[in-house]
Amino acid sequence: MTVAVAALPPMAVGERLGRLRPLVAGSGADALLVTTLPNIRYLTGFSGSAALLLVTGEEALLVTDGRYRTQAAEQLEASGVTPLVDLVLGGAQVQRDAIVGRAGRGGVRVGLEAENVTWGWQRRWADTLAPAEIVATAGMVEGLRVVKDAGEVARIAAAAAIADAALGEVLGMLGAGRTEEEVALALDTAMRRLGSQDRAFETIVASGPNAAKPHARPSSRRIEAGDPVVIDFGATFDGYRSDMTRTFCVGGAPSPELARVFEVVADAQAAGVAAVTAGVVSGDIDKVCRDRIALSGWAEAFEHGTGHGVGLDIHEAPAVGPGSTAILTPGVVVTVEPGIYLSGVGGVRIEDTVVVTDHGCRPLTAFTKDIAA
Amino acid sequence: MTVAVAALPPMAVGERLGRLRPLVAGSGADALLVTTLPNIRYLTGFSGSAALLLVTGEEALLVTDGRYRTQAAEQLEASGVTPLVDLVLGGAQVQRDAIVGRAGRGGVRVGLEAENVTWGWQRRWADTLAPAEIVATAGMVEGLRVVKDAGEVARIAAAAAIADAALGEVLGMLGAGRTEEEVALALDTAMRRLGSQDRAFETIVASGPNAAKPHARPSSRRIEAGDPVVIDFGATFDGYRSDMTRTFCVGGAPSPELARVFEVVADAQAAGVAAVTAGVVSGDIDKVCRDRIALSGWAEAFEHGTGHGVGLDIHEAPAVGPGSTAILTPGVVVTVEPGIYLSGVGGVRIEDTVVVTDHGCRPLTAFTKDIAA
Repeated sequence: MTVAVAALPPMAVGERLGRLRPLVAGSGADALLVTTLPNIRYLTGFSGSAALLLVTGEEALLVTDGRYRTQAAEQLEASGVTPLVDLVLGGAQVQRDAIVGRAGRGGVRVGLEAENVTWGWQRRWADTLAPAEIVATAGMVEGLRVVKDAGEVARIAAAAAIADAALGEVLGMLGAGRTEEEVALALDTAMRRLGSQDRAFETIVASGPNAAKPHARPSSRRIEAGDPVVIDFGATFDGYRSDMTRTFCVGGAPSPELARVFEVVADAQAAGVAAVTAGVVSGDIDKVCRDRIALSGWAEAFEHGTGHGVGLDIHEAPAVGPGSTAILTPGVVVTVEPGIYLSGVGGVRIEDTVVVTDHGCRPLTAFTKDIAA
Repeated sequence: MTVAVAALPPMAVGERLGRLRPLVAGSGADALLVTTLPNIRYLTGFSGSAALLLVTGEEALLVTDGRYRTQAAEQLEASGVTPLVDLVLGGAQVQRDAIVGRAGRGGVRVGLEAENVTWGWQRRWADTLAPAEIVATAGMVEGLRVVKDAGEVARIAAAAAIADAALGEVLGMLGAGRTEEEVALALDTAMRRLGSQDRAFETIVASGPNAAKPHARPSSRRIEAGDPVVIDFGATFDGYRSDMTRTFCVGGAPSPELARVFEVVADAQAAGVAAVTAGVVSGDIDKVCRDRIALSGWAEAFEHGTGHGVGLDIHEAPAVGPGSTAILTPGVVVTVEPGIYLSGVGGVRIEDTVVVTDHGCRPLTAFTKDIAA
């Protein structure tokens, strides 16, 4: 059984190269050699594990190796970019020759994605492309990826629906004396059975005092009555990821201190989501959550940012933290995930993934926030 | 239930910094700033997801952030390197200041791992460390990692034992009309239940014509009688990985052509394993396998290298391919995995992970190679 996914709207892959070219030109480069795999997937639909994409003013050239012969042609076609992207298949030398043939001339400035390529790779390609000049670029395609089209939002929503269903399946384990590792494994297994290609990131199941660690890994600790249990996880659908955190209290009766923590985090998270709308600066979402928690005296116990963008990567632009300056626009997908962590006591984090709309936002994660669930 | 793992011999972590320093000095650098996480783990025992390790002629400094306060101290202690490594915890600025305080002086040459750091990171650290000079290094710690100590071999063997047990659990699914995805999910789940931290890499279950693709991903194809089924997978134990491939024939009665392929690959793989011993050049192992397959007329159908090192990474030095020049010594762990791939027909690959000894090698993977299993 898999989660029923309605026919998904197509993604506007074919428009993306056209939106990238002015950015490349604006940076002073004549071409961009795209090496970041999620960026290549975004621009062409090709999802293989090894490729380079050269984007010049008029052309685009995707090079990969022979094992992707069929897949590359099919994915370019399915994405509607076949007329826009030349495909070259072959080993390393064939790939280098193809790139050099289009960009390795004097007077040409080739942008390299400096936050992706290694220093060693840059040194070799500087030689390979000479007499062309290489220049460092950063965040160019990532900037385009911030605003999702309808097809992308639908895929993130599909991943979120799988995650919701999987959590529903395993929730009964919390009161059954199981370990964190057992619950995490059951959740990961359920997501894959329900249609997730893989978990979106390493699932967190943190109970009792472990819940005080925002980055806890599932341990062999047995979950007990009264424990807070933080579950932070996501699914992957057609390359797009979801991200959700729920915190439950086993048995539904937290200690008075934990009960207050649950209340404050739920209030801060709801306020954060309510503040998300087109035109807002992302740092202000963080401030809304942080102020609510500070009012309760736990400012120091909220030790991370409020959220981040989600899409082909689990963490992508925009940041939603103190001082973040991104202006939210319709189609931006972000998480809102405040938390309070009390060493030795436990912790609570609640997180939704939401898509910004003209008048507010729409949550893509839907699981109940009832702590006794 | 988990696979019984005998008390593991300790790893000689404390000796490694001492073996690294002459290599750093020999490269002309005064210090090495280690950024590759498996290298940091190898040198200090620290397994966190964010850290820097500065190794100078007399000192070593590990910097990481506050969430690893307890873990870092515990792992340094458990690895016996507490007296050898200073630990600094803090945010990015604290970390930079600590590194600069030890290495940011004129006349100092600081090696950066050029195949790991991004170009952007290198540019920022060149500024940060000035007036010290930065120099590109490659493969220095990786070279040390080639020869495993007894503790490391025991951990790879433990991972291999988990993988063996997991395959035994799911083998019955092959004749039961299940899909490749279902078998892969069951195998991954069994490995985790048996004590694997995670799969060592994305599990391959490739049946029928899919078996002709060496890098196939599990699909929704239902496995049928007569199919070859290539299963390539591994477990992770205490950071160390295993790697094994078996190819089965559902029902045990392959077509005559496939039966011959099974025979030739099994013969080539056994010959390759028999050739592994101290003093042999790794490229000669490849040649042994390749010659056997060529004799049968399928030279073109063996389209990848014979093997690779395995340890903290699933692919590490030494390479075992055409022209590879590494000389095998006791403690080197490599895979031997020839294959034949016939488009439209199917394929067979058989792989063991073995540790080189003075007089031959010892396989760490033990599952039966009976194709009807």
